[in-house]
Parts: sequence; structure tokens; C-alpha cells
Amino acid sequence: MTVRVTVWNEFRQEHTDAPVRAIYPDGIHEAIAAGLRGAADLSVRTATLDSASQGLPDALLDETDVLTWWGHVAHDDVSDETVDRVHARVLDGMGLVVLHSGHFSRIFKRLMGTGCNLKWREDGRRERLWVVDPSHPIAEGLGESFVLPEEEMYGEFFDIPAPDELVLVSWFEGGEVFRSGATWRRGRGRVAYLRPGHETHPTYHNPDIHRLIGNAVRWAAAPRGAAPTFGNAQPVEPPG
Amino acid sequence: MTVRVTVWNEFRQEHTDAPVRAIYPDGIHEAIAAGLRGAADLSVRTATLDSASQGLPDALLDETDVLTWWGHVAHDDVSDETVDRVHARVLDGMGLVVLHSGHFSRIFKRLMGTGCNLKWREDGRRERLWVVDPSHPIAEGLGESFVLPEEEMYGEFFDIPAPDELVLVSWFEGGEVFRSGATWRRGRGRVAYLRPGHETHPTYHNPDIHRLIGNAVRWAAAPRGAAPTFGNAQPVEPPG
Amino acid sequence: MTVRVTVWNEFRQEHTDAPVRAIYPDGIHEAIAAGLRGAADLSVRTATLDSASQGLPDALLDETDVLTWWGHVAHDDVSDETVDRVHARVLDGMGLVVLHSGHFSRIFKRLMGTGCNLKWREDGRRERLWVVDPSHPIAEGLGESFVLPEEEMYGEFFDIPAPDELVLVSWFEGGEVFRSGATWRRGRGRVAYLRPGHETHPTYHNPDIHRLIGNAVRWAAAPRGAAPTFGNAQPVEPPG
Amino acid sequence: MTVRVTVWNEFRQEHTDAPVRAIYPDGIHEAIAAGLRGAADLSVRTATLDSASQGLPDALLDETDVLTWWGHVAHDDVSDETVDRVHARVLDGMGLVVLHSGHFSRIFKRLMGTGCNLKWREDGRRERLWVVDPSHPIAEGLGESFVLPEEEMYGEFFDIPAPDELVLVSWFEGGEVFRSGATWRRGRGRVAYLRPGHETHPTYHNPDIHRLIGNAVRWAAAPRGAAPTFGNAQPVEPPG
Repeated sequence: MTVRVTVWNEFRQEHTDAPVRAIYPDGIHEAIAAGLRGAADLSVRTATLDSASQGLPDALLDETDVLTWWGHVAHDDVSDETVDRVHARVLDGMGLVVLHSGHFSRIFKRLMGTGCNLKWREDGRRERLWVVDPSHPIAEGLGESFVLPEEEMYGEFFDIPAPDELVLVSWFEGGEVFRSGATWRRGRGRVAYLRPGHETHPTYHNPDIHRLIGNAVRWAAAPRGAAPTFGNAQPVEPPG
Repeated sequence: MTVRVTVWNEFRQEHTDAPVRAIYPDGIHEAIAAGLRGAADLSVRTATLDSASQGLPDALLDETDVLTWWGHVAHDDVSDETVDRVHARVLDGMGLVVLHSGHFSRIFKRLMGTGCNLKWREDGRRERLWVVDPSHPIAEGLGESFVLPEEEMYGEFFDIPAPDELVLVSWFEGGEVFRSGATWRRGRGRVAYLRPGHETHPTYHNPDIHRLIGNAVRWAAAPRGAAPTFGNAQPVEPPG
Repeated sequence: MTVRVTVWNEFRQEHTDAPVRAIYPDGIHEAIAAGLRGAADLSVRTATLDSASQGLPDALLDETDVLTWWGHVAHDDVSDETVDRVHARVLDGMGLVVLHSGHFSRIFKRLMGTGCNLKWREDGRRERLWVVDPSHPIAEGLGESFVLPEEEMYGEFFDIPAPDELVLVSWFEGGEVFRSGATWRRGRGRVAYLRPGHETHPTYHNPDIHRLIGNAVRWAAAPRGAAPTFGNAQPVEPPG
Repeated sequence: MTVRVTVWNEFRQEHTDAPVRAIYPDGIHEAIAAGLRGAADLSVRTATLDSASQGLPDALLDETDVLTWWGHVAHDDVSDETVDRVHARVLDGMGLVVLHSGHFSRIFKRLMGTGCNLKWREDGRRERLWVVDPSHPIAEGLGESFVLPEEEMYGEFFDIPAPDELVLVSWFEGGEVFRSGATWRRGRGRVAYLRPGHETHPTYHNPDIHRLIGNAVRWAAAPRGAAPTFGNAQPVEPPG
């Protein structure tokens, strides 16, 4: 089965911020997509905020099994209508992989029900990510831990619901830890959060990160049950 | 420690619907409160939608450890401002016990991140609630199962996030099951959902239900950790 | 990827009990295997208790991605050595799908850490299984609920650890409910429990049950992370 | 309500190892007990392996609401009979708080169903413990994080079932992280694991650790539901 992935990016800082453009000249989305395009089982498209329908017209979502989401400075520019539509799609079974500063996106906060806040520090130091659930497909091929030589720090408390599955925990040089790879189910949909990916670091050119995102996409696209029905219902069992 | 409980009710059908008024002449909130007032460790107040600040002024919430919520026909009359304030209080540590048709309240949907829909049937037949986690304080004193002789049916799929703790599962005569007692943590707050309590049945006069709600209130008021801080943070560990 | 499944059965009552033999003349294992053999992505073998190495020599386990387990009257005949070996395999990543009266098998109790007891009644009446997690691959193709016209009843409390994922809840005519499809992770291994399958009913000839077991086998065979290492460890990060 | 705590210690290295005796001249159990004895709501006794009935006669367990467990070099000296009895008590509702090297105790492995192995390093460097669930009573009074100036390192992967609740995650100077405060329910019993407490460091004289253990004891002693019944059962609902 081919998984149809749409890589969404707000695509703003690449235009306004020279250091970001230097690392991601074609946009963060193209770096992420490049990391997924080598896989025979993934069919990859990209979408950006300043396109028609904020990049996510129904025709595209109709052909999207999993959506990945990167945003940072433009969360508030994502419209109610876009958030409502993506939310409905997730509940109906579309997978969603939220990346890094997407923790503060409207769609992630909507799905979590919490503030999704955290501690952060832009010091570009080392991050080490440890696998705390080696039974999980998101951990495939990552080793027991792996390192990003330079990243932004995110620290606990991360104000999310207790994950259904906790896969990765990060260690930072400054003394912090963070739940960096986590999953939740919402309706028929599957949601993953993956911490790394600050725009001033080449994280989305890193092969371990490509693998991690690919793993999460496949996990989020797994088969699922029938669409539930709701409302006034006749008895399903006859009187005894 | 005394737990300060505020029992909130939309208090509409008691005015408009004679069968409801016949069962709850003083309002559903007073029946619930009556069930809690006998407990030496609970201090109980009531609040209703059509009061000032929709019954929930800051001065009251400042003195509320746990809020119970019953609503049905007036969910949409609860304002954004009320939902925002209650949501912030829960994340900051106030307990919330959502009752029956409160599954469709704006505050519950906000906290869950899902549609919170379900199947239902107003047939007034038997419901049996089974304890599936006897280690849980919400199950104290309920026996292995208990019966409500007449209730509305709620059936799966119940579109909620997988509960952090599942305590009760209901059996209905028509062939349905339902996750009837469940808990979630949101920020520093604790949220419980308790299924029973349709307005045309005397459920809130039932001693088992009084006990169940009291148990949930105490659970939701348990001690908790310090308020987290968020934002730009200096390293907590010195360079090695 | 082809999943290599070994269907294990104690295979005793088929020899001693005419009604069981009438339903499963080749053994319960052959009925289960027949239900899986039609799938192109599964490679199926069977194994039984009274064979060499209790049916599970290392050479077979080396080629087993997922083991399914049916036992009832001969749990105590499974040796310490067999339990130890299967336990080690699960922690090392082999999937395990435990069926019906396998709830009382030594390997399931070892993996759960609890008593695994329950209520039961051999009355051959209807069971209805409801999907309570439509995001789960184990629920694929089962509809919102499905019926077994005759089965043994199992009732709560089922003395298991709270499942990592609860997929199915059963309704029984006598008033009981049961957590009928549940999963846990143990080490790198994935464990599922599926309730139906009493030996005096044709449950393992039912297409929904074939699908359910196949779904669980595929879920239990999903990719996973690297084998962890343990013991005395040097620092992974250099002094700052 | 007074919680009756029994603090169990294998009490061996305090006799054989001068550095341990220097820190814990009366035994680790007395240091732990001293930290709990100031609390008006706790009634504290101690017990050690080389006493009659391995320190845990039925008469003592009959009066024990919560047992804390510290062991290290003598896990294998704990008899089958002791493990069986403590296991049965936990399933029947006794709380169990397992400390540090107790991760490898027979009773913890029995309750978890996994290998419970981990990485370790006796370097006596700093550990910082972060609260990742500020809604949890185990976190009360600990702040957002707290430090132990010298401790043994424990690192992931920690081979435990995914905790029902994860409360603390540790950061170590050498680059490791660890799930340091975690809970599980087993039967009617509640189990907590708390990482700190190597015998060559004064951890059990630390006020934060006293508070942490006291919090866990109170959590493990919370009210619970009725004892379940098992076995052949008549229908609870009349034919319709």
C-alpha cells in the first residue's frame, strides 16, 4: 500500500530570515519531502500556508492519508475554517504528524485540549533522543539513542495530555528532558508529535530525522476500523 | 482537608418540562448537591447558567476545588468567555466532573479535542455499571456492579480520547456497552466523566450515584505538583 | 513483508471430548490456521503441546514473527522451560496473540503479572463485540460491532493490567460486559488478547474471527526499534 | 485515615560494606522510616529480610496498607513463598512502593512481567528529576524539578511495561534519561517505582526524597473498589 503524504509548511521565515533561507532555500517542506521521497511506499506532496485554501483544499485532503505540519510564526494566520476542516479529517481517520514548533499550532492545541506550552532556549547545543519504547514502529532503525549536534532546547513540563504511547525522550546539555516522540488517537485518526526541527538548524537534512518522520507517517497511516455512527439508535439485540 | 465543590447546572428543562420538574423540583443541581452535603469532607455550593457570569464568577472559581457540570439543551448558550475561563482553571488544577449529557458541553469537547458524540436511546430501561478497575478510588463502595432501573441508553463508539483510566463500563438491555466512568489529566487538572443522569429519570436521587459523584469529586481534588513555568529558560545545570 | 505465524494449540480436548472433535476434527489450531492461510501476507504453521519441545523448538521460534496461543485444560503441562523461552522471545520482539481460555495460560500470566481471572458461564448464548477504538488496526473490517450467535460468557472483573490499548468490549445476554480485545507492550514484544473461542462453539470457523485474528497478527508483527542493551555503561555525552 | 506503612529492606550491605554502614548506620530502612515518621497520617514499621518469615509474617501484612521495598544484593534470597504472598497481597489491594535497585527484585519482576533491566553507572554524579505530570499527587511539593547532588546513574531502556502514569523523568550528566517515577495498577493494588536511592549515597536522608516516598505511600493507599469475585457465574440480568 502506498501512503499518500502531504507535507505542510507555513513557509514564512524562509522568505524573511536569511539564516533560515540559507539552510532551507526551497523551504522546510521541501527538505522534509526530500527525506520521504526516496521511499517506495510513500507518495509525497507539499503544501504551504499562502497558497489557495491555505494549501489544503478538500481535493488535496481527499487524497491525503497523512498530513505533516510545520508552523512557527504564523499559527494565528491559520483560519478557523482550516482548523475545523483538518480537525474533522483527523477524527475521520487522516493521520497527522506535528513537528517541532507545531506544538503551538491551532490544530494541535485543538486536538490535545491543553495549552501545549513548554520551556525553550535557542542555544544550538546538543540533543540526544532516547528510545523508551523499542516495541514501537516509530523507533525502527534509530538505534537506542541518536544525536542532533545542534538544536533548540525544549524542556518539561510539556503541557500535553499523557501520551497514549511515549516513544522518545530527549536529553539536553543544559539539564532538561523532554517527551520528544509521542502519540495519541483521536476518533479514527492517529496523531504523532516529533520534537526536533528548529528552523535555524539543518535538522530536516538529517537522515535519522528523515527516518523518524517516515516511521511516524507509516504508523499514522495504519489500517483502522469502520467509521462509527452516532445519534438515536434502535436496540441491536432482540428482547431476550 | 475539605474539598470545595461547586455543582453547576444549566437549569433549563426544570422550568420548561413538567416531567423533569416533577423529578427535580429544585433543579438537578440541588439533587446532586443533596447527595454530597452529607459528607463531612465536602463543602458544597451550586451554580446555574442563568445567574451572573453564567454562575461562575472568578470569586466563586477562586474557592472551587472541583466543579461538576450538567448541561443538555443549552450547551451553545455557554459563552466563549465562560469556556475559556473554566478551561484555564482546569489546566491550572481545578478538578472537573462532567455528568451525562455534559459529554456534549463545550468545555468537555474543548478538553477532549474530539467530537464526544455517541449513540443514545431514551427508552428508560435498565443500565448495569461494572467496575473494571477495582484499584480506583472512584469505584469505592459500589460493589462489583450496580444497577439503575431506568435510564437513557448511551452506546459506543463514544468519541473520546482513550481514557487515562477506565473505571466503569455499562451494559444496556438493547445490546449496547459504554465506557461510563473514565478519567483524564489535563495540565494540573483532573477530569472525570460519569455517564448516568438523564433528566427524566431519578438518577440523581440514587445513593449509588451520590457515592459515585462524591468519589469522583474527591479523586479530582487530590494533591498535585507545582504550577509549571513556561517560556525562554536558562540552563538549569552548569556546564560540566 | 510476509508475517510468519505459528498457531499453537494444546490439542487435548479434540481427542477426549466428542463435541469438541465434532466441531474441530483437525484441532482448533487447524481451524485458526485455515482462517489465516488465505492471506497473501501471512505464512502459517501450526504447533501443538504434545510434540517435541512442546511444539516450540528454537528452530521454529527462530522463524516465528507472531505466535498465537490456545490452551485450556493443560496449562499446567506447559513446562517452566517452555514458558521461559516464549517469555524471552516476546521480550526480544516476537508477537503473541493469546486466545480465549489462554487468559489462564502460564505465559499470559507471566507477561501480565496479575491473576488473569474472570467470571465465566458456559451457556452458549449470544455475544456482541463492540469496537471502542476505531483508530486501531485490530478493528479493521469488523464494522461497529459484530455478533457471535453462541459463545461462553466471560465477565468482568478481568484481572489484567490496564491495557495499553482497549479495542473491543463484549456484551452478553446475561448482563455482563468484558474487555475482549486488548493490547500490551512487553520489552520489544507486542501482546494481544482476544476473548472469543470456546471449544464447544464453532467460533474459529467464523469469518469475523478469522479477520480479527489476522488483524491482531499483523499488528503484533509491526516494525520495532533496536534491541536495547543493558548493564554497566560509560557516559554517552562528553563532559561539557 | 492513618496509612500503615511497612518499610522493608534486605539489610545486608549495611553489615558488610563500611561505606554503606557509614551513611546508614541503622540500615536504609531506618533512614526511610525516619523520613516518614514525622507525618501525622502515617504509621510506620520496618522489616528486614533476615527476620522471621523474611520480615513479612501474615500478621504484619494484615496490618500493612503499603509496603516499601529496598533490595539489591539479596534478591535471590527472597523465597518463592515470600514472593507469592506479597504478590497475592498486592492483587488484593496492598500498595507497593519499589525503590531503586528493587527494580530487579523478584516481586517487582513478577508484577511487571518484563525483565526490568536497565543501564547503570556508579559515578556519583548529579541527577535532576523533572515532574512530567504536575496533576499527580506523587509530585506534590517537589517543585518543577529537584536535584540529587550525587547518585548512581540509571539509563533507558528501562524494561518495564509502559507505566499507567509517568510522573518523573531523570536527567543525568553523562547524557542519559530515565523514567524515574512511575505507577501501575495490578488487581486492586497500586504499584509505584521510584528510582533514586543507591546505598553509597545519602539519598534517603534527603528531604525531597522523604517527601517523594511519603507522597507515593499515600497515593498507593488511596481508597479502592470492592474485592472482585471470579469463576462460574449465574446471569445477573433476567431474561428480557
